[in-house]
Amino acid sequence: MSLNDIYEPIQDDLDKVERSLEAVADVDFPLLAKLLEYVLKNGGKRIRPSLTLLCGKFYRYDPTLFVPMATAVELLHTATLVHDDIVDNSAIRRGKPSVSLAWGENRALLLGDYLFSKAGSLAASTGNLRAIKVFSQALMVISGGELKQTDEIFDLKQARDHYYKWISAKTACLFSTAAEAGAILSQSPEHVIETVREYGYNFGMAFQIVDDVLDFVGEEAEVGKPVGSDLSEGIVTLPSILYAESHPGDNLIKRVIENKDTESVALAVEEIRNSTAIDECLAIASDFSSRACRAMEKLPDNSFRQALLDLAVYIIQRRK
Amino acid sequence: MSLNDIYEPIQDDLDKVERSLEAVADVDFPLLAKLLEYVLKNGGKRIRPSLTLLCGKFYRYDPTLFVPMATAVELLHTATLVHDDIVDNSAIRRGKPSVSLAWGENRALLLGDYLFSKAGSLAASTGNLRAIKVFSQALMVISGGELKQTDEIFDLKQARDHYYKWISAKTACLFSTAAEAGAILSQSPEHVIETVREYGYNFGMAFQIVDDVLDFVGEEAEVGKPVGSDLSEGIVTLPSILYAESHPGDNLIKRVIENKDTESVALAVEEIRNSTAIDECLAIASDFSSRACRAMEKLPDNSFRQALLDLAVYIIQRRK
Repeated sequence: MSLNDIYEPIQDDLDKVERSLEAVADVDFPLLAKLLEYVLKNGGKRIRPSLTLLCGKFYRYDPTLFVPMATAVELLHTATLVHDDIVDNSAIRRGKPSVSLAWGENRALLLGDYLFSKAGSLAASTGNLRAIKVFSQALMVISGGELKQTDEIFDLKQARDHYYKWISAKTACLFSTAAEAGAILSQSPEHVIETVREYGYNFGMAFQIVDDVLDFVGEEAEVGKPVGSDLSEGIVTLPSILYAESHPGDNLIKRVIENKDTESVALAVEEIRNSTAIDECLAIASDFSSRACRAMEKLPDNSFRQALLDLAVYIIQRRK
Repeated sequence: MSLNDIYEPIQDDLDKVERSLEAVADVDFPLLAKLLEYVLKNGGKRIRPSLTLLCGKFYRYDPTLFVPMATAVELLHTATLVHDDIVDNSAIRRGKPSVSLAWGENRALLLGDYLFSKAGSLAASTGNLRAIKVFSQALMVISGGELKQTDEIFDLKQARDHYYKWISAKTACLFSTAAEAGAILSQSPEHVIETVREYGYNFGMAFQIVDDVLDFVGEEAEVGKPVGSDLSEGIVTLPSILYAESHPGDNLIKRVIENKDTESVALAVEEIRNSTAIDECLAIASDFSSRACRAMEKLPDNSFRQALLDLAVYIIQRRK
């Protein structure tokens, strides 16, 4: 099933989100306009704003609130990508040069700040205090989690636990916020808010694990960045951890982290691609995705719930 | 008059802001706690939060709203300093190594993001939608203005105009937001909100011009960074602009911007210190400060108004 098919029940509002993102880039300052267009136009799969829209469809849905909040969610996501590319020193994002490579780190930093505040401003425009609070806390979790990650030393015994905490903060938090904001804005009862948060969290965990798998086995043209990017930047994700766990005597991963030399990285990528770690990761991702779907059983069966279920399957099967 | 004397009418709540900043640093993650304490403890003159508290004193003042908002204002200010030091490559801030020098740019970037979101979260906790909106827009103006500054090419004919626009975005905006948030939270009538915004804007312009003068004539031990820091980083402020305006045939400033060599910088700093540019700058700063004070004439005469007037005089006479 394609994303377009899945998005069908919310396509009109998703188009409005796209136009709202275009409006964000329509500023009277050429450099900023160019940078905003660069990062916002045709920039992604729009999964996070879709969660906001879909999770808002079970109770009182008002597009004048949902379109700004879904736009805010996508802006916050984009801001974190722009700053991440500085932190990780990434040259490529979505198949083109990262902002920090193309315009320099300083401009990338300031663009990220601008996107954060524009996101906050749009979230505030909904006038819903609870949604605003949930939204403003998301960035705290994300940046706090990334900061923690700069402090971690690879220790095989704790690696899996660290990884889950890390992706929970860096990825799952924004998915659960996106979903939760939708339920809050539609004045859903508490158990529904809790349900979509559970969905969003598990969805986000699955999403990130698949992302980390694609970094090893994806096609560069589809993924939009070179294979093995994470390891070459010294970032240890679940495939590397599972590989290391099943090769306790082998210090390949440790060597790669310490030396980051092209040869060791290429060797490690090849070893991991051919190991059982990839399938094990996908099984774990499927498990998170199933938990997301199970949470949805508590909601009424309609086209929006179906779209959320389909999305949870889509993200496991995706190739980019 | 000392800052302590001026702060007397709001000292109790200012102490609460200080404790609230300490609480922000009290997190269960040692690296983050250490970084937060480093930038928040005894970190500054607390002028911005004081504006929020003082400007809230004319109508319904509720400490449970004002302390979080004043804390949020100080956090937003601190976040912009942390990110500025990355952008400007500044080694020293308030007499000690900048976060980016001491812990690296990546951690400084993430710390700034964390501070932004914590600020947004505290502002949201006031539950006042208008104050939240004004607050969330401030960072947009600040980061947008800084981004614009990266795009400016020194042109003497436009330099003064560019400078005013730049400091209006980078400094005056947050002072006017700090003041405005106070008036909004206390449910002041519209003309009072407008009055304190006018005060805050002019106060902020005066504040920044004096800052830029102190960069030339201040004592390193008092200012907390080496004399001539701005020029050595290629940043052209009002003293340099006025000097260049009165020496149209002399390309000293242009040479400094283009070469940034230690010798030219030292020569330029010495020339500017001994020129009339310094006194002219202080006269312009005094003029902004007077405008701030004139705006205050519209408010009732009480100890809070007096503190705001005294503060506007203090910032002109300060030596750090």
